[in-house]
Amino acid sequence: MSAETLNYDLGVRAVARCDLMGAPPYSEHDDQLVRRYLTAAHAAALGTLREWMEAAGMSVRCDGAANLIGRYEAAAPNAPALMIGSHIDTVRNGGRYDGALGVMLGIDCVEALAGRRLPFALEVIAFGDEEGSRFPTSMTCSRAVAGDPVSGAGALRDADGVSLAEALAAFEPAQGEAPAMRRPGELLGFLEAHIEQGPVLEAEGLPIGVVTAIAAQKRLLARITGVAGHAGTTPMHLRHDPGPAAAEAILAVERICGAEAGLVGTVGRIAALPGSVNVIPGAVEFSLDVRAPTSAVRDAAVGRIAAELQAIVARRDLALTLEVTQDLAESPCDPTLTAMLVAAMGDVGVAPRRLPSGAGHDAMVMADLCPSAMLFIRCKGGVSHNPAEAVDPKDAAVAARAMLAFIERLAVERGGAKR
Amino acid sequence: MSAETLNYDLGVRAVARCDLMGAPPYSEHDDQLVRRYLTAAHAAALGTLREWMEAAGMSVRCDGAANLIGRYEAAAPNAPALMIGSHIDTVRNGGRYDGALGVMLGIDCVEALAGRRLPFALEVIAFGDEEGSRFPTSMTCSRAVAGDPVSGAGALRDADGVSLAEALAAFEPAQGEAPAMRRPGELLGFLEAHIEQGPVLEAEGLPIGVVTAIAAQKRLLARITGVAGHAGTTPMHLRHDPGPAAAEAILAVERICGAEAGLVGTVGRIAALPGSVNVIPGAVEFSLDVRAPTSAVRDAAVGRIAAELQAIVARRDLALTLEVTQDLAESPCDPTLTAMLVAAMGDVGVAPRRLPSGAGHDAMVMADLCPSAMLFIRCKGGVSHNPAEAVDPKDAAVAARAMLAFIERLAVERGGAKR
Repeated sequence: MSAETLNYDLGVRAVARCDLMGAPPYSEHDDQLVRRYLTAAHAAALGTLREWMEAAGMSVRCDGAANLIGRYEAAAPNAPALMIGSHIDTVRNGGRYDGALGVMLGIDCVEALAGRRLPFALEVIAFGDEEGSRFPTSMTCSRAVAGDPVSGAGALRDADGVSLAEALAAFEPAQGEAPAMRRPGELLGFLEAHIEQGPVLEAEGLPIGVVTAIAAQKRLLARITGVAGHAGTTPMHLRHDPGPAAAEAILAVERICGAEAGLVGTVGRIAALPGSVNVIPGAVEFSLDVRAPTSAVRDAAVGRIAAELQAIVARRDLALTLEVTQDLAESPCDPTLTAMLVAAMGDVGVAPRRLPSGAGHDAMVMADLCPSAMLFIRCKGGVSHNPAEAVDPKDAAVAARAMLAFIERLAVERGGAKR
Repeated sequence: MSAETLNYDLGVRAVARCDLMGAPPYSEHDDQLVRRYLTAAHAAALGTLREWMEAAGMSVRCDGAANLIGRYEAAAPNAPALMIGSHIDTVRNGGRYDGALGVMLGIDCVEALAGRRLPFALEVIAFGDEEGSRFPTSMTCSRAVAGDPVSGAGALRDADGVSLAEALAAFEPAQGEAPAMRRPGELLGFLEAHIEQGPVLEAEGLPIGVVTAIAAQKRLLARITGVAGHAGTTPMHLRHDPGPAAAEAILAVERICGAEAGLVGTVGRIAALPGSVNVIPGAVEFSLDVRAPTSAVRDAAVGRIAAELQAIVARRDLALTLEVTQDLAESPCDPTLTAMLVAAMGDVGVAPRRLPSGAGHDAMVMADLCPSAMLFIRCKGGVSHNPAEAVDPKDAAVAARAMLAFIERLAVERGGAKR
């Protein structure tokens, strides 16, 4: 099947479905989109997704973690499945496409087959929680599916004091449903399409890109200590002000991380203590978030930053503490599936831009269960977690065509596509 | 009277008296010194100060603003007075000498006269509020004396909801007392001795210094706005991060203000917004406090800083707002009295180091009523507003001798000292 024969409306409709779900009953609020795990808005979304999945030819079930799964059987019964999907929950005041678009595109792919059977089943999944916007954990649902559930998740409570277990017990679609965990042999692989949430594809004029890996990430907390003093009575040359030292550090982070593609460093939080207009700070604290395609690149950058920090505080006669608060290794996408996705992009005439994902995704979790691949879709200005999140329907259509080309290639490899 | 004939114990005792008042009943708390305006600790301090003033030969009264004033009459009745003093209140968790030492030194000066009459009266004043640590205003008491009372002061409330008027009505020492305001002809001048609250004298190995002026001060709030983004997904070259711009600005403040003696610039408060570890800030706000001996020097520095800020945000494609939140002109000390104080320092063998005061003081307020002069006393490490505040009793003794030499010189000028 060539790309030209595909219905161009496929991805366009996926975007329209995301837009439909941008308001009640699919949002908890009228004036902003928030669809948190196990809320009535979540249940409403599952009800409508079920209808769309069934209309596309899938049999639909909810699992015990409130993931909705539509299955489109293979030519033979009980065949392993390619799972396609993403999450259906949102952050507070979120955008309409973060997560949801990957679910809608999965449904479109199945519908595009128009009943034609493949050597493998397709399953489209809508994970219930990825964002962690209700309970103090995240990726709860893909972790449950992948057999690495969040420890003690059931006892976690939301801001109203409702535990996750209580919310799940009261969530009608999941009542009496099967455990979420899947066995490795059941799934051939996992394919997630997701908006980029960054500006790279837009800057390069590309509709989609292939994710090579989910970046290695390290978070640190730096504290530079000097001597607090009166802003009026301490001459500049007698100060031990940690503020300018922190300023030099921030510029060093920008310079060091700007020197290598794929490496990013962010100071998102900074505070001077005690924080009075008329007091020279005694200490400055700031956060540091460094990500790179590999832990080696990331750690080399962190090492360079730490060395500069040490030199800065030594030169200024200040003290430094630098504490690692989070350390996540990179999660490479499966090379075989990724190569197939690159080839599929060639099939639909798109330059196969490979880029790392700086953000975490369900695909990273699913990689523990089965080979996983990931497709990024250009979003306007790289903006996400924001009502201004926007996707050009034409880009979603290109994504749908690439995903179908990927499915066709996998079908050829697994025994030939059957029409 | 030569310096050698003075009782060396004078200043030493002044320090000891400050130390005595560092704990209950002169402090509101056992574990830290806090003596706020119109508290029981304030009343206790006034009770003991009254005893000391009377023992030194003064007649003592409290005025209607709860300032305690001891008067040592001149040779002739109803002569104008040289007023000496400072404030008796403290900040929370404050030091023992900030304010109080100037009061104690005034008492010592009167006692040193041992009954000898001068051509003018001496008045020693303990202002009740300078710090503003109870009500949301400051220098309330010197302003009342100088005839420039804080507008609506009586209605201001403390953290417990008690108004200043209510607290004053319940403050026993001030009940039924005379208004605080003095007529200009009543006072020849005002002399305030105060710890430096800065490190200049210590750095130069000098026990005391003469204040030339209270610095001009300008406070500003800067806000640099960029574009918030995901810390993981936005490459360095596509960021509009206001953080590094603020960092450049902080270094510019340090460089510009460090280029000129007497000029100081402080960034005491800084915040990145929204302030999440994993979000590129959309805006950074920081405060700026610039002080200099003159408004002209200060404003030239603020102008240079503002120009650099504009250049920084232009180069980085960001936006800037810069708002002036406070603008206080310099308050020069009276040249005649200051010259007399310089000569007095020569009398006691101390190099007459002249320095501006970066902090505000009651002398600045009293300058509106009468000629004012100010003497700084070295304090350890320049530390103030802190329990670690410390003064060498020998330095206080030097200060007392210089103040007495000043009094002698004034007496000669006003008609000869009478023994």
